[in-house]
Amino acid sequence: MNHGHAIYKLAKALWPINRSITGDGVRETLSIIKTELLDLTLHEVPTGTQVFDWSVPKEWRVREAYIQAPGGQRICDFKKNNLHLVGYSIPVKKRLSLQELKGHLYTLPNQPDAIPYITSYYKERWGFCLSHNELQLLADGEYEVFIDSDLFDGSLTYGELIIPGSSDLEVFISTYVCHPSMANNELSGPCVTTFIAKELLKKSRNFTYRIVFIPETIGSITYLSRHVDHLKKKVIAGFNVSCIGDERAYSYLPSRNGNTLSDAVAKHVLKNLCQQYVSYRWSDRGSDERQYCSPGIDLPIASIMRTKYGKYDEYHTSLDDLVNVVTPDGLEGGFNALWKAIEALENNCYPRVDVLCEPQLSKRGLYPTLSTKSSGAEVRLMMDLITWSDGKRSLIDIADLCNAPVWELYPILEKLCEHKLMTKLDINLAPVSSRSNLLVETLS
Amino acid sequence: MNHGHAIYKLAKALWPINRSITGDGVRETLSIIKTELLDLTLHEVPTGTQVFDWSVPKEWRVREAYIQAPGGQRICDFKKNNLHLVGYSIPVKKRLSLQELKGHLYTLPNQPDAIPYITSYYKERWGFCLSHNELQLLADGEYEVFIDSDLFDGSLTYGELIIPGSSDLEVFISTYVCHPSMANNELSGPCVTTFIAKELLKKSRNFTYRIVFIPETIGSITYLSRHVDHLKKKVIAGFNVSCIGDERAYSYLPSRNGNTLSDAVAKHVLKNLCQQYVSYRWSDRGSDERQYCSPGIDLPIASIMRTKYGKYDEYHTSLDDLVNVVTPDGLEGGFNALWKAIEALENNCYPRVDVLCEPQLSKRGLYPTLSTKSSGAEVRLMMDLITWSDGKRSLIDIADLCNAPVWELYPILEKLCEHKLMTKLDINLAPVSSRSNLLVETLS
Amino acid sequence: MNHGHAIYKLAKALWPINRSITGDGVRETLSIIKTELLDLTLHEVPTGTQVFDWSVPKEWRVREAYIQAPGGQRICDFKKNNLHLVGYSIPVKKRLSLQELKGHLYTLPNQPDAIPYITSYYKERWGFCLSHNELQLLADGEYEVFIDSDLFDGSLTYGELIIPGSSDLEVFISTYVCHPSMANNELSGPCVTTFIAKELLKKSRNFTYRIVFIPETIGSITYLSRHVDHLKKKVIAGFNVSCIGDERAYSYLPSRNGNTLSDAVAKHVLKNLCQQYVSYRWSDRGSDERQYCSPGIDLPIASIMRTKYGKYDEYHTSLDDLVNVVTPDGLEGGFNALWKAIEALENNCYPRVDVLCEPQLSKRGLYPTLSTKSSGAEVRLMMDLITWSDGKRSLIDIADLCNAPVWELYPILEKLCEHKLMTKLDINLAPVSSRSNLLVETLS
Repeated sequence: MNHGHAIYKLAKALWPINRSITGDGVRETLSIIKTELLDLTLHEVPTGTQVFDWSVPKEWRVREAYIQAPGGQRICDFKKNNLHLVGYSIPVKKRLSLQELKGHLYTLPNQPDAIPYITSYYKERWGFCLSHNELQLLADGEYEVFIDSDLFDGSLTYGELIIPGSSDLEVFISTYVCHPSMANNELSGPCVTTFIAKELLKKSRNFTYRIVFIPETIGSITYLSRHVDHLKKKVIAGFNVSCIGDERAYSYLPSRNGNTLSDAVAKHVLKNLCQQYVSYRWSDRGSDERQYCSPGIDLPIASIMRTKYGKYDEYHTSLDDLVNVVTPDGLEGGFNALWKAIEALENNCYPRVDVLCEPQLSKRGLYPTLSTKSSGAEVRLMMDLITWSDGKRSLIDIADLCNAPVWELYPILEKLCEHKLMTKLDINLAPVSSRSNLLVETLS
Repeated sequence: MNHGHAIYKLAKALWPINRSITGDGVRETLSIIKTELLDLTLHEVPTGTQVFDWSVPKEWRVREAYIQAPGGQRICDFKKNNLHLVGYSIPVKKRLSLQELKGHLYTLPNQPDAIPYITSYYKERWGFCLSHNELQLLADGEYEVFIDSDLFDGSLTYGELIIPGSSDLEVFISTYVCHPSMANNELSGPCVTTFIAKELLKKSRNFTYRIVFIPETIGSITYLSRHVDHLKKKVIAGFNVSCIGDERAYSYLPSRNGNTLSDAVAKHVLKNLCQQYVSYRWSDRGSDERQYCSPGIDLPIASIMRTKYGKYDEYHTSLDDLVNVVTPDGLEGGFNALWKAIEALENNCYPRVDVLCEPQLSKRGLYPTLSTKSSGAEVRLMMDLITWSDGKRSLIDIADLCNAPVWELYPILEKLCEHKLMTKLDINLAPVSSRSNLLVETLS
Repeated sequence: MNHGHAIYKLAKALWPINRSITGDGVRETLSIIKTELLDLTLHEVPTGTQVFDWSVPKEWRVREAYIQAPGGQRICDFKKNNLHLVGYSIPVKKRLSLQELKGHLYTLPNQPDAIPYITSYYKERWGFCLSHNELQLLADGEYEVFIDSDLFDGSLTYGELIIPGSSDLEVFISTYVCHPSMANNELSGPCVTTFIAKELLKKSRNFTYRIVFIPETIGSITYLSRHVDHLKKKVIAGFNVSCIGDERAYSYLPSRNGNTLSDAVAKHVLKNLCQQYVSYRWSDRGSDERQYCSPGIDLPIASIMRTKYGKYDEYHTSLDDLVNVVTPDGLEGGFNALWKAIEALENNCYPRVDVLCEPQLSKRGLYPTLSTKSSGAEVRLMMDLITWSDGKRSLIDIADLCNAPVWELYPILEKLCEHKLMTKLDINLAPVSSRSNLLVETLS
């Protein structure tokens, strides 16, 4: 079943909303997602709340913003494209010369058609973004700047959905809702995540799924400040979902320590979906894994992406759109990779063969009875699964040893279990990192 | 001393016998080997005996088998070449059209001169093998098939030779005697093994040698079912001996876990005999290491071969012969590699230098007394042996560190021991795999 | 500050002295060094003293040595070049034919201009070294050989300087003073070491520095025989200083086990000073690391060199001079590499970030407040330092993870500590190798 078009449709619906790290744009976005995920809960965290080393910033609201040119026409109109306004711009209404105005204008000379995406969350500023081509056309004269915005004590909003499973051990999925109209580096994440959640709701699940839609950085810090002890006890794997909607590449970014279950699963899935996937290093990090994997937090969070933030020309500009960058096929591919990773977590176990020496497969109809020069190859995968099933290796590791996608092993393992040749031992899950307690104690 | 011609002569004597996994061909083969190894004992295991997941099959006996062609001539005559008859063919006597007959004929279209080797041990069938060229010449008409065979409750036969050493820790050597007239993938193994045993009998030995001549798969499973506890307690290294008589390559196939003493020795010997040796992986396995290294058995068994089964065109056909494939030089090379591995096991130890700092070699006449630009190189190997002899590294590992064949170190080590500069610490041998008990308990 | 010229000046002053493993040349050399390092102490160890497997040899004194040619002219005059005389030549005064004489003459036919450096410490001999060109010119006739030398019960001399630090844990620096007039493979070592010591005396130090100027091999063995227990308890890192004055390369030779703190520091420094540095292996060893790292001693001693002994044409000949081989720039580079290694030891720690999640850098003025497409890169190094500072990794390891020289991290780490964001945990130092006691007990 192809989810690409449905995900794409949701992305189009969310496209025009002016999201930032706080404000009604986030609420509106989450309320639309809630029509797909009825149990999504919205949380509000008041401005000024201390969250580790940070505090929740003021809420930002924009009603209108534009510049009136000397000729009278409006330029940089926030209503036409919300990227025109620098994020968190303070209110302003004043007249300036072109020279003075230019100190508040941002363009990308190397991408003259693109409107850049600029924010200033933690220092009060104002500014406008426009294409370099448009800047070149501005005539001398007096410009009137009008920004009808508020920075006020409000709250930071995030969405949370807990989908229970047989076990209270958790898979944690985080995506962000804090950028205005951009496609891959914003909408692909929450839209694919929404459909992952919908799919999870249709199945029985071994693990509990904790899915959050948050503003990047301050949102993950806020969420961690409220839930770190629980997360460290329960989360056995997870993914940060970002930039997962284009068709140009598949990409992996590791957790900080690089060898968690999430890392093993992500690498296995991507290697078997696409031999040319791009493998980044921790030094290439740039999204909420920075918080989830920080020293003392150390959650097992890896990233499965299509083309990574910062690695495509349109990134953080108006060109990151639903036409040339994000497509239904791109979203479908991203969904598929993430879903295969979740399936790999759900199916993971330590298989153990329950006979000594190779089992006699032919008496069970599992083996060709006529030995010929080529018949050996036909049951090779079954034999390879059996030979590595010593109860000490995970199914993911065994799939790597068999040089086969783990999903090709699921039906074979089922068949061998039905014939009482194999037992699936529970995977030995250790969600709590041993080091963290020490640091938390030191800090408290 | 060159053993190649003597080994080759034994192979010629064993060539015509119709071996299979049971039957008089195995007994006849073992009785000829027993003329070389007087203490070889033959064991019979009755049909129907449960051996782990398998049971010992019926014994197969063939008196005569052929096809009478419409023109009256005999084709596929078992007397002319025992490969003509599919192994374990049931008795049959009937007339068929060429069309019907073809459902029971096996050829290799890509090797039109070769008679393939086919068996059907675990499903009752009958069939004949012939060259594709001969098949092409068969005229339409009525054929009469005649197979005078029995499948009856008899026994499986294997040979066993225990050669005691100073220690009751064992080196286990296994080879198979279950294929009809083929050379590399049958006769090279038991013939080289016979002469390894003869050579061992001439020396004093540190280890006890357990040498078995068995039918492949069912034989190793049968042997393990009778001796697994003992083997797990005593075996510190061993080799499966197969395809060890051609001149085309040297090959290594690892144990399942890949890092046993047998693996270290096999790789060291082959690397130093022949830098281009072929290193296979566990996924390339195909002989009795499948049983010896299976989960819960986990014996330290590696394979030292010339050209591996399945990796030469003549494999499992009538072309695998004593003319073009197996030669006296090929057998000599295989013998030599295996013997060097056994010597490496016998000589292995943890050498420890017994002075602090470098010893003063010159006062013992072990070092040139005039220091020149080049004299340093002359005693380098001795100094390298000394520097790594910290009592924590095996002599094999030290030889690898010295980038020298271990056999070049034997006389140097002896000399240093004579000068009281070095002690050979016993190697720390741990034959019992810790995991296995668990599984055996689970199964019982 | 450039030390190259000052080091070079010291090398010129030490150049003419006839050093050997014992004798007045060593004392004269050390007394000149003592004018730079007032606290240097000279130690004398009597001839015949047992030092592990060796005994201190007789002292060697030369007053005069030359050959009188048939024409009456003096050749191979020790006064003109002390390399002319084979080291430790016994006294001799006799007439010989050219033919007889040639049995005592040493040349290098492939380097016809070079006088080779030859010694015979442990077998009594006499001989002369000369250029091959000069040898070719010798006419037939009667030669008179005159060597006015003594081999007598005296002592072996070495220098030792202890520079105390806050901790009694030690960094051990060893260099040798036992070759006559050669530059890279003699003078570069003690001269650079002298200036390292002078520089250390100017600073406050965390570690105590133990610096020795010894004859190679017999000197390090002697020093170890007196101090091994102390050294094994206290030394946490150290370097053998040799061949550190040319401009052709930077080189690293590991400790025997290859993974000590000294190895990590040496590799880090050289990699970041010069990406093309030459990395040798333990099998390439050749100086006092042979003793310091021998089994049962196992001190953490690595070597930082310019061009390694034996790896340049002029090595161990009269061509290893202060003109073409060793230069002020070469010495400066060697000093700099060694000093950076010492700084890395002094600054090493296990940094730990003291907030959970990333700290809010902008409120402390540590981060640009306007987020643009490129601003992320500017604080990347600070963020990388923070992300790896989990209290479990050394600063050296973190610098490697950041792909940056550790010296670029020092000021950043200081700034973060000032802002109370980071704590420097003490590095976990384990100077005593666990194995050694065993061997020492065995020997005693």
